Amino acid sequence: MTNLQVRAEALTEIAHKTRQAALKLGNLTTETKNQALKAVAEALTAATPEIVAANIADCQAAETAGVAKPLRDRLKLDETKLQGAIAGILDVAKLDDPVGAVQMHRELDAGLILKRITCPLGVLGVVFESRPDAVMQIASLAIKSGNGVILKGGKEAIHSCTALVKAIRQGLATTEVDPEAVQLLTTRGEILELLNLDKYVDLIIPRGSNSFVRFIQENTKIPVLGHADGICHLYADKEADLAKTVAIALDSKTQYPAACNAIETLLIHRDIAAQFLPAIAATLQQAGVELRGDAPTCQILPEIHPATPSDWETEYTDLILSIKVVESLEEAISHINQYGSRHTEAIVTENPDTANLFLAEVDAAGVYHNCSTRFADGFRYGFGAEVGISTQKMPPRGSVGLEGLVTYKYQVVGNGHIVADYSGSNGKSFTHRDLST
Amino acid sequence: MTNLQVRAEALTEIAHKTRQAALKLGNLTTETKNQALKAVAEALTAATPEIVAANIADCQAAETAGVAKPLRDRLKLDETKLQGAIAGILDVAKLDDPVGAVQMHRELDAGLILKRITCPLGVLGVVFESRPDAVMQIASLAIKSGNGVILKGGKEAIHSCTALVKAIRQGLATTEVDPEAVQLLTTRGEILELLNLDKYVDLIIPRGSNSFVRFIQENTKIPVLGHADGICHLYADKEADLAKTVAIALDSKTQYPAACNAIETLLIHRDIAAQFLPAIAATLQQAGVELRGDAPTCQILPEIHPATPSDWETEYTDLILSIKVVESLEEAISHINQYGSRHTEAIVTENPDTANLFLAEVDAAGVYHNCSTRFADGFRYGFGAEVGISTQKMPPRGSVGLEGLVTYKYQVVGNGHIVADYSGSNGKSFTHRDLST
Repeated sequence: MTNLQVRAEALTEIAHKTRQAALKLGNLTTETKNQALKAVAEALTAATPEIVAANIADCQAAETAGVAKPLRDRLKLDETKLQGAIAGILDVAKLDDPVGAVQMHRELDAGLILKRITCPLGVLGVVFESRPDAVMQIASLAIKSGNGVILKGGKEAIHSCTALVKAIRQGLATTEVDPEAVQLLTTRGEILELLNLDKYVDLIIPRGSNSFVRFIQENTKIPVLGHADGICHLYADKEADLAKTVAIALDSKTQYPAACNAIETLLIHRDIAAQFLPAIAATLQQAGVELRGDAPTCQILPEIHPATPSDWETEYTDLILSIKVVESLEEAISHINQYGSRHTEAIVTENPDTANLFLAEVDAAGVYHNCSTRFADGFRYGFGAEVGISTQKMPPRGSVGLEGLVTYKYQVVGNGHIVADYSGSNGKSFTHRDLST
Repeated sequence: MTNLQVRAEALTEIAHKTRQAALKLGNLTTETKNQALKAVAEALTAATPEIVAANIADCQAAETAGVAKPLRDRLKLDETKLQGAIAGILDVAKLDDPVGAVQMHRELDAGLILKRITCPLGVLGVVFESRPDAVMQIASLAIKSGNGVILKGGKEAIHSCTALVKAIRQGLATTEVDPEAVQLLTTRGEILELLNLDKYVDLIIPRGSNSFVRFIQENTKIPVLGHADGICHLYADKEADLAKTVAIALDSKTQYPAACNAIETLLIHRDIAAQFLPAIAATLQQAGVELRGDAPTCQILPEIHPATPSDWETEYTDLILSIKVVESLEEAISHINQYGSRHTEAIVTENPDTANLFLAEVDAAGVYHNCSTRFADGFRYGFGAEVGISTQKMPPRGSVGLEGLVTYKYQVVGNGHIVADYSGSNGKSFTHRDLST
């Protein structure tokens, strides 16, 4: 047996243990799960010195290894950040329990009752880069939703993650939740092995750069909750209000340029381009935004760089904006449906019919009218938590809260009912009477 | 350019046309879509002679080619079967429209409104073996749910499918639905090309044998609505009622043995095995069922064949049943979670606590108590239609009705709202007030 086989078997065993623990966790009451979250928060508070020390070791090793400053900033977990994350765990305890919701309740016939009830997915696989605070957020969301979780952090955060998971499991050991429900993988090769565990892992949640997420998506058959790209557009219609257009363009581009819901391209109707573009350009340039325009845009704004075709398919995640003049609403919709990543797309217009056509025909998780694309966020939507943002077509789509971590079962309860009695010309009929949910 | 490239480009063009037609179809009112369904039904009725003649040609070619009788039976589409399928289209017109349902309606702040609204998936890819009537069922479900559809039938049904799709498109040409919304692929290599069109096709629905579905699942990155296996169990608990156990075992195995929701294995608690097994065996053997037992079963029923380990993972789709004696409820659950295909699993018991533990811990789309697994069906559940049965974990799961053909969008409508106003220590707060849906 080779070393790889030994490790693969060990991981299968870990996954099996997680699954068994998750089966029991999935059955616990809301109250019991919330108590477990409080115990986890207390254990993390008590372990603060060890966690902070472990994080300092990680940060020093990263500095020695010449890791770039932005990555080292994300790696850092001081006492203040840790306290914030622990407060976040207590917030998760306050959220509604996504498990046990009766989505359907129907009498099929006298004494034969169908219910559709939400239940945990089972085991989550979470892979992330740098940020060790993801451990606490994801573990608490997993416990609340009744799921086991296998965590795999970046090697630069190994001491921090180990200290965090140790404290979390110590906290769980004092509760009804089996600590085996939360696992940490620490070996490098284990990412690919984890992605192959489709028999044991029900959902992969990646946290990291676009290329990291794309790598995950392309290397697993397990469903992935995430998005690789965020190419979002703002379309200024011929009946747009100038002040709103300028304010929304500025906010959508600059309020947090690295966010996936920031815009990369401004589309503008030709009828207003000459009037609007100078004002938009002045405001954005003052905010430090580099503009790149197509030929008609450059005629109006001769000082900016010309855009090349690759600009329409680039997520800058930076203070850069491409601008394209369009002939019509239809051309704007068509451009967005071709180049957008189905994330969040906005129109500015005072014409409600135009807005409604845009909202209907643009294919994206979020379609916005007269507001900034930056509102696309689980907390701003009032979900209390954001598990991830999905740009796939099937639900869950867009900002996904706790409900993205549950599925459902159909329960049918009878009293000896058989299908033969409902078959043939003299068969009984179904009543199909909806009962209260 | 090779021949393959030529075909691939043509298919991309077809897919693009379907997508454009679907975009408009997705915006039509319920009334308009129902009118289109009626026009399709009329056109099919008018084309009956051509369709029946085309089907006779297919059936004769199949007979000449030595195609097996069961497959030829599925291929057959005479006038009676055609009329039944046309009636089915008019039934689809009567179903609730799955598009446009407001699932969430929330004020984020004054004048900033979030809605989550169901919308079509876009374009469905449907691949099926033999049965040409699938064309009519799937095309009508697609139109009702606002989706375009690309159909690929088996080569043995090519004349029938061509005549059916021609009539469907002729019917649509008299309505507001662009006939390009319904396409038929007729070349053999096109299945794999279709499975590669993840930019254009949002969901693949396979209709055919287990191995056919498995082939589809393993050869596409597009989500697949279907199931390869149906390994379902019945567990007779130590507190089971004998009469119910016998009746449910008989119905679950023999009412339609080739169905995916028929049982393959009976698990029985050791405390009742000696008492129950002779009665169960007598009834099942009288119905022509071959029994295969583990060692304890064979001690009680010495005349039956011993089961081998491969029996626990086999879907017989035939009058064969494996039987295993278990020590406990936990062993039954553990066996089912290991060997079941997450389809439909049933327990017979008079103890409600035992039943509830089974319903909670068995990981399957359908968990049943004191009734036959054969109830797992969209029509019996009252969905009006069954698009497919999914054994994946994420929703849609189990029997999937029209709602499986839609997704949702988040719409946010404001009046110039920007995120910067809600940021920082003096930022505005969100109201997050739920409005009526």
